[in-house]
Amino acid sequence: MKEQINIGMIGLGTIGCGALDVLQTNKAEIERKLGSRVEVVKIADLDITSERPVKFDKRLLTTDASEVLENPEIDIVIELIGGVHPAKEFVLRALRNGKHVVTANKELIAKEGAELFEEAAKRNLDLCFEGAVGGGIPIIAALKSSLGGNRIEQVIGIVNGTTNYILTKMSHEGRDFAEVLAEAKAHGYAEPDPTNDIEGYDARYKIAILAGIAFTCRVNVDDVYCEGITKITKRDIENARELGLAIKLLAIAKRSGEKVQIRVHPTLISVDHPLASVNDVYNAIYVRGDFVGDVMFYGRGAGPRPTGSAVAGDVMDIARNINFGATGRLPCAVLDRCEAQSMDEVATRYYMRMLVTDRPGVLASIAGVFGEQRVSIGSVIQKDQHGDNAEIVMVTHQVAERNFRRAIELISKLPVVAEVSTWIRVEE
Amino acid sequence: MKEQINIGMIGLGTIGCGALDVLQTNKAEIERKLGSRVEVVKIADLDITSERPVKFDKRLLTTDASEVLENPEIDIVIELIGGVHPAKEFVLRALRNGKHVVTANKELIAKEGAELFEEAAKRNLDLCFEGAVGGGIPIIAALKSSLGGNRIEQVIGIVNGTTNYILTKMSHEGRDFAEVLAEAKAHGYAEPDPTNDIEGYDARYKIAILAGIAFTCRVNVDDVYCEGITKITKRDIENARELGLAIKLLAIAKRSGEKVQIRVHPTLISVDHPLASVNDVYNAIYVRGDFVGDVMFYGRGAGPRPTGSAVAGDVMDIARNINFGATGRLPCAVLDRCEAQSMDEVATRYYMRMLVTDRPGVLASIAGVFGEQRVSIGSVIQKDQHGDNAEIVMVTHQVAERNFRRAIELISKLPVVAEVSTWIRVEE
Repeated sequence: MKEQINIGMIGLGTIGCGALDVLQTNKAEIERKLGSRVEVVKIADLDITSERPVKFDKRLLTTDASEVLENPEIDIVIELIGGVHPAKEFVLRALRNGKHVVTANKELIAKEGAELFEEAAKRNLDLCFEGAVGGGIPIIAALKSSLGGNRIEQVIGIVNGTTNYILTKMSHEGRDFAEVLAEAKAHGYAEPDPTNDIEGYDARYKIAILAGIAFTCRVNVDDVYCEGITKITKRDIENARELGLAIKLLAIAKRSGEKVQIRVHPTLISVDHPLASVNDVYNAIYVRGDFVGDVMFYGRGAGPRPTGSAVAGDVMDIARNINFGATGRLPCAVLDRCEAQSMDEVATRYYMRMLVTDRPGVLASIAGVFGEQRVSIGSVIQKDQHGDNAEIVMVTHQVAERNFRRAIELISKLPVVAEVSTWIRVEE
Repeated sequence: MKEQINIGMIGLGTIGCGALDVLQTNKAEIERKLGSRVEVVKIADLDITSERPVKFDKRLLTTDASEVLENPEIDIVIELIGGVHPAKEFVLRALRNGKHVVTANKELIAKEGAELFEEAAKRNLDLCFEGAVGGGIPIIAALKSSLGGNRIEQVIGIVNGTTNYILTKMSHEGRDFAEVLAEAKAHGYAEPDPTNDIEGYDARYKIAILAGIAFTCRVNVDDVYCEGITKITKRDIENARELGLAIKLLAIAKRSGEKVQIRVHPTLISVDHPLASVNDVYNAIYVRGDFVGDVMFYGRGAGPRPTGSAVAGDVMDIARNINFGATGRLPCAVLDRCEAQSMDEVATRYYMRMLVTDRPGVLASIAGVFGEQRVSIGSVIQKDQHGDNAEIVMVTHQVAERNFRRAIELISKLPVVAEVSTWIRVEE
């Protein structure tokens, strides 16, 4: 048993303050569970003058990261600055100096995980990142450990709170994207530059991490197909509801034969699916294992307090390993190379909306093209009239995306089709 | 690293077969993750002749538990016979012989946990029981480890699949209890003698275990208030729906000042609550921590495959501890005595249905009694006429159960009240 475990922090922004807060507020409980004292002994941040929403001993602050990274007293470094650089260099230095690392940095783990985990393994150090996906939801631990006896078939997540908030507002209040985004920005639910969230990049990092653990394989972030929510309209949300479908930005990872398909895009799912009722800023990760069946993990996917909870859990895990001489006990199990299935090969269902000339035979010509491309139609709804045109909504049965895209291309060129307005993937 | 970790099993019933199945089916994956071989080397069961739904080497079978418990080659004993005796004696013998134990036996852990964990701790052995609550849902690991940095405020679970199936059928199909129970028995979703499930005893064991971990205190099962679902009628379910409420058998553990309240009873919750849409045999556990906020864990709460998943996760956890010399790493953290709040003191809301004389002033006399007992009324619905009587449904605001019960006693005696037909607790 180590009498005292010393923590150094890099980054005292919003998330850093949440982590510091939980380690201070629940210090007695945490120490009692561990049987060791746990002290934050140094905090590096470029800004050491701003007021923070958490009370702490200001003498711990330094602008010099070396005072954390080179401090021989420090056992665990908590990195919470975000982004790849200089976070990567800091984490590598911490590991090379024999320090365990806790981070909530999804971009870093998704892009540079390979190098970092190799460095940690070489030195028998722990590198923990529960807070990188789903805030305080213990999904990393579940996949690495509790569900470890399963062959995981798929992981489907709502892993970005901002887009889930926007889509929920659009759905419940019948409002359009731009309007809700503006409101989300005003309320602080969306960043001033929301690109990272609304284009799905944040979700892409997260599903890359989850897929890697679930399928024990190294995922290249660039192989993850990614499409944001900017083109979703209230019109499509209303049509979908008529069809018993709800819209979510889903991050999907599935085994498909020997390959894996990993993709982030707006998706229609049955309103009866447990993910359909995950609303507002909440996240949820739906996992299917060969023995456990379907399990879902739900909670606040971001924010200083939930992420602080995850960081504290990681710190306690490492502290136990230190005390039992068992560091490196649960190493990175990303052992395989995996081949990503191209979107062309991915088979799913599709919702589509188009404007057509309102005269006999139109449906027949569209159905003809679909038939040639082996796309079979599940349902058709004729919607409102727009001048000489009628709006038609269709949902296909499952078909390879290559075929569907080819059919759409051909249908767009039919003289009777004014416009294929939009299409959205539909998951079972 | 131990080259091979040997498992002995006690009990090869339905659940035992599920555990054996996962350890065989996913053997290669499990061993690759652990870096050790994991072999089931002996299986004790009184019945060694019946056909089982899993293929295995019949030479492993014995009717003599000693061949597992006294076998010096065996590292981990999996106990899956259920019930307190002789399971307790077997687990104690295993521990005294230096073997780690995995069990899914909720009754054993809830009633005899104190003695068993003490024995395990004394010998630095692991005693794991993820499968005892929520089947394959990793709720024990989450509470013990990932959420360990939180002060847990409450745990609310749907932890019994049979009753959830019955209540779901009653709600969705407008049918009465007896009819659905008979059907559930016919389909094998309810035992021939369903007492343990429908009276809430099974849920009581489970919430006693969860509360103990969440509040790090020893819970006496007898202190857990327990009420089953046998008195729930389709009439009340319909009334509740009109009020925006759904019926669930909830297992509730909450801190209440310095005390804890732990109770199992049919409960009305808002249809918007995430637990309200947990249907059929699915389970879910809703946890509130001071930092993580609200998190929910959802999945199949029973059955051989999900429970097998939990058992395999525990086996892997122990195997890692063996390999790293870290057994006893995550000990039982039930450190405190906790005082149970009596139901008299518990404050909640109440739904009630009664038959009253249909004449002026009736509501005033009822409201008068409620007022004297400091019970305040949230909503009132006048329902159908029954001869000279009218049916009235009321929902109170939050009030201590002592006051509510006293009010009901007095109201029952009012000359204008023919009958207080039923009342059900309502949770926020």
